[in-house]
Amino acid sequence: MGLNNNHGGNIYEAARKYCLREEEILDFSSNINPLGISNKVFRALKDNLKDVVKYPDSDSAKLREAIGKYHSINPENIIVGNGATELIHYIPRMLISKKVLIPVPTFSEYEAASIASGAKVKYLRLKEDSGFGLDEKALNKALNSVDMFFLCNPNNPTGQLLPKKSVIKIADSAEKRGVVIVLDEVFIDYNEKESLISDAVKIKNLIVLRAFTKFFAMPGLRLGYLAANSLLIKRLNERRPPWPVNSLAQAAGIISLSDKAYIKDGISYVKKESGFLLKELSKIDGLLPFPSSTNFILVKIKNDGINVKKLYNILAKKGILIRDCSNFALSERFFRIAVKKRDKNKRLLNELRNIFAEY
Amino acid sequence: MGLNNNHGGNIYEAARKYCLREEEILDFSSNINPLGISNKVFRALKDNLKDVVKYPDSDSAKLREAIGKYHSINPENIIVGNGATELIHYIPRMLISKKVLIPVPTFSEYEAASIASGAKVKYLRLKEDSGFGLDEKALNKALNSVDMFFLCNPNNPTGQLLPKKSVIKIADSAEKRGVVIVLDEVFIDYNEKESLISDAVKIKNLIVLRAFTKFFAMPGLRLGYLAANSLLIKRLNERRPPWPVNSLAQAAGIISLSDKAYIKDGISYVKKESGFLLKELSKIDGLLPFPSSTNFILVKIKNDGINVKKLYNILAKKGILIRDCSNFALSERFFRIAVKKRDKNKRLLNELRNIFAEY
Repeated sequence: MGLNNNHGGNIYEAARKYCLREEEILDFSSNINPLGISNKVFRALKDNLKDVVKYPDSDSAKLREAIGKYHSINPENIIVGNGATELIHYIPRMLISKKVLIPVPTFSEYEAASIASGAKVKYLRLKEDSGFGLDEKALNKALNSVDMFFLCNPNNPTGQLLPKKSVIKIADSAEKRGVVIVLDEVFIDYNEKESLISDAVKIKNLIVLRAFTKFFAMPGLRLGYLAANSLLIKRLNERRPPWPVNSLAQAAGIISLSDKAYIKDGISYVKKESGFLLKELSKIDGLLPFPSSTNFILVKIKNDGINVKKLYNILAKKGILIRDCSNFALSERFFRIAVKKRDKNKRLLNELRNIFAEY
Repeated sequence: MGLNNNHGGNIYEAARKYCLREEEILDFSSNINPLGISNKVFRALKDNLKDVVKYPDSDSAKLREAIGKYHSINPENIIVGNGATELIHYIPRMLISKKVLIPVPTFSEYEAASIASGAKVKYLRLKEDSGFGLDEKALNKALNSVDMFFLCNPNNPTGQLLPKKSVIKIADSAEKRGVVIVLDEVFIDYNEKESLISDAVKIKNLIVLRAFTKFFAMPGLRLGYLAANSLLIKRLNERRPPWPVNSLAQAAGIISLSDKAYIKDGISYVKKESGFLLKELSKIDGLLPFPSSTNFILVKIKNDGINVKKLYNILAKKGILIRDCSNFALSERFFRIAVKKRDKNKRLLNELRNIFAEY
């Protein structure tokens, strides 16, 4: 099951490897809202448990209605999936892409999905010295020879956010070349005004992906969605297998979007805590954290005496997981950490301070 | 979302169309264990709700271990999926089938999945006058020109069960011709000794499908699995997207298989109640029920004055759903009903008696 182990959040494998109990692991490797699941959603899940004896609504009609209302778009322009990753694999297959452009570093499933669908992959290297920014000239050149472009905004694992007006410019450029952009906004909830989801229905070649996994802290339930114009939706829906989304995920999704207080608190908590982590990480000799617009931070190890494998091992033995970023095609000097609650962030910072005082 | 509406259990659409409340619908259209979900599983779901904030185990290691133990097979020979239907769509795509043989009538997703994967479909008509049995000679001839064969045993919607020794003979015949058999046993729990799942790992071209949906009454959670020999498993697993099964389905699956009392009760309840329904249906002038080896019964309307659409409408207005079988490529005289609890079965029987007394 090769691909499955290349992601954060694999507390099961870590528990087996380091003889830890799953519940004692402090997991900085998966980017989940530190506030945990909303109380309202938790209660709704309890109330809906009895309904698992019924088939879920295959059309997810009420959920698509709630999502449509939240983003002010027509529910007919939305497709829901068994997590955003299911949709990432579904899109290049259904649109029969031949050549896909993928920035490097970014989320590894774009590449896996493209290859699985039979497409060739062209890579666009993001350069460290520009803070992993997209070079417009290089992008436009690369777009000439592909039919699909995966763009993660904010990008995973760099945390860099492109402002809406830049993405619109890229979308225009892609449209001129007949390239479909798959814009993955699963980490944009902290900067909702930069999202293009409400615009997707009007742009010819744009598919916007979102998820409940991260911001609403329910990766265990699997729930993601996409929005696009009617023509793309028609092509994507043509042979969609029935019952992609389980009934509890549907119920949780509907309640999540109505919990305005949770949404507001999640945004302000992460912004504050992300600032704290960035400031404290910067003070540690040997570490270079990159500024982030979302709930995780990419960090470079400047000290030559230690690489990420070694750091990962030291921390894992203490029950702390970080995300080794070497399979993002970064060097063995990069790791990613999620923003968690203050006490947990402090514990990680203390461990890092101790480790880097030694090296 | 064309395909999605061609199945039983769509209480959501029926509620909208007939102005019913979802919870007041008496649903004979979906084939779910009438005992409902096991109490042990329900408690386990409650206990595991808090874990939806973590990613599910992408490998479903503990669940595959439990399934392996239950069927006495190696967990490495098992793949779990987001419902059996997800796997039905996955198999012909991953094995790049060119031509698929499908009996008629049978579960409609075999055809949908084959067409979606780009394969051509060849149909093998099961004849009503032989009780919808498989004709060995016609089957062997048809197997010569295909590379995959979907076989549902017991068959949906006919309820007919092929004994194990007949299926082994078919598997031999398929193996000689290089044909992969996808043997869908999602309704075999009432006749476990006829299952080929423990043999699948030793047979070259056989994939056996099972589900938790029906027998364990949890269609809302989405959980199915397949077993096959190591070579087939390797090909199927090669580019499997991560996190196919949500964490609650994994927890429920593990507990289900350990609940021996529930399993025993479910089997004996359905056998008794299926016999009762068959006997009572036979007494109604105008109806011809077919003997069934599982938890549903196919019924033919003999009376010319009423067809299935009309019968469906009359019952739906009273809040009772039956499964119109015309999209199984049967004539407009067939419907399928699930075996439910005695009081509900009696209510349906009463309605049918009244209706057919009129026509």
